[in-house]
Amino acid sequence: MQADPSAFVLDSRLEADTTPVCDLALCRLLLMRDARWPWLILVPRRAGLVELFDLEDADRRQLLDEANAVARALDTATRPEKINIGALGNVVRQFHLHVVARSSGDPNWPKPVWGFESALPYGSGADEALIRSVQEGLR
Amino acid sequence: MQADPSAFVLDSRLEADTTPVCDLALCRLLLMRDARWPWLILVPRRAGLVELFDLEDADRRQLLDEANAVARALDTATRPEKINIGALGNVVRQFHLHVVARSSGDPNWPKPVWGFESALPYGSGADEALIRSVQEGLR
Repeated sequence: MQADPSAFVLDSRLEADTTPVCDLALCRLLLMRDARWPWLILVPRRAGLVELFDLEDADRRQLLDEANAVARALDTATRPEKINIGALGNVVRQFHLHVVARSSGDPNWPKPVWGFESALPYGSGADEALIRSVQEGLR
Repeated sequence: MQADPSAFVLDSRLEADTTPVCDLALCRLLLMRDARWPWLILVPRRAGLVELFDLEDADRRQLLDEANAVARALDTATRPEKINIGALGNVVRQFHLHVVARSSGDPNWPKPVWGFESALPYGSGADEALIRSVQEGLR
C-alpha cells in the first residue's frame, strides 16, 4: 500500500532543528534547538503549502488564532522586549511561521534571527522548562 | 482644541522611508523606497498597537485578510520566488507588517531584508509603476 500523497509530512530540516511542543488544532508547534532566543515555529499540518495564500480561508484564520495564542504564551513565558513573527521560507519551502522572543542585548538585536550565525544548544533542561511554560500558557 | 490622543498617527520613520499606496479598510499600505526588493508594509490605522495580540479580534482578522490580498497582489505584480511576511518591530514599535517579494540572486537572498545595508532609490517611475500594478491586483 502506498502512502497518501496528500498527507502532511514535516520537512526534514524543520524536524532536525526543532523539538516538538504539541499539536494544536491545525498546526504542529515546534521549539527551535537554539538557546540564543526563545523561538517557536508553527507548521500547518496540510500538505503542499508554500505561501500564506495557499491556505484555505478557514485554515488561514485558524493559523492566525493559533499564532496569536502562541505569541501571547511566549510573551508570558519569557517577558521579552518584542515578539517577532515571520513567514519567510526562502530556504525551507514548507509553509511555517516563526514566533520569536527578542530583547535588547540578544546576539543580533535589533536585526532578525534568521540566517544569523549558528544555533547554541540549550543547557540541561532549559528547553524542557520553556516547553512546559509555553504549554501552560496555551491551556 | 486638542488632538484626539487615541487617533492614529503614522510613525515618523515609516513615513520617511515609504510612499503611500492606498488605505484599505483597516490598514494603510505603504511601499518602501528601496528598489532592491518590492517591499510593502501594512499599518493598521489604530493608535497604540505594538504586538499582534494588541489588536482586537475583528481587526486581527481584517489585518490577515488584507495581508493575504496584498501578498497575492505583490506575487502577481512581481512573480517572485518567495513572499516573505514579517512583523518585527524591534526598531519601530508601531505595529506594522512587512510583505516582501524575494528571489534568488537578490542582494541578501536567502537571508532577510531587514537590517541589511542601505536602501537603493527607485529609478524614474519604477515605484509608480509597481504601485499601480499592486493597486490593480487589489481591485
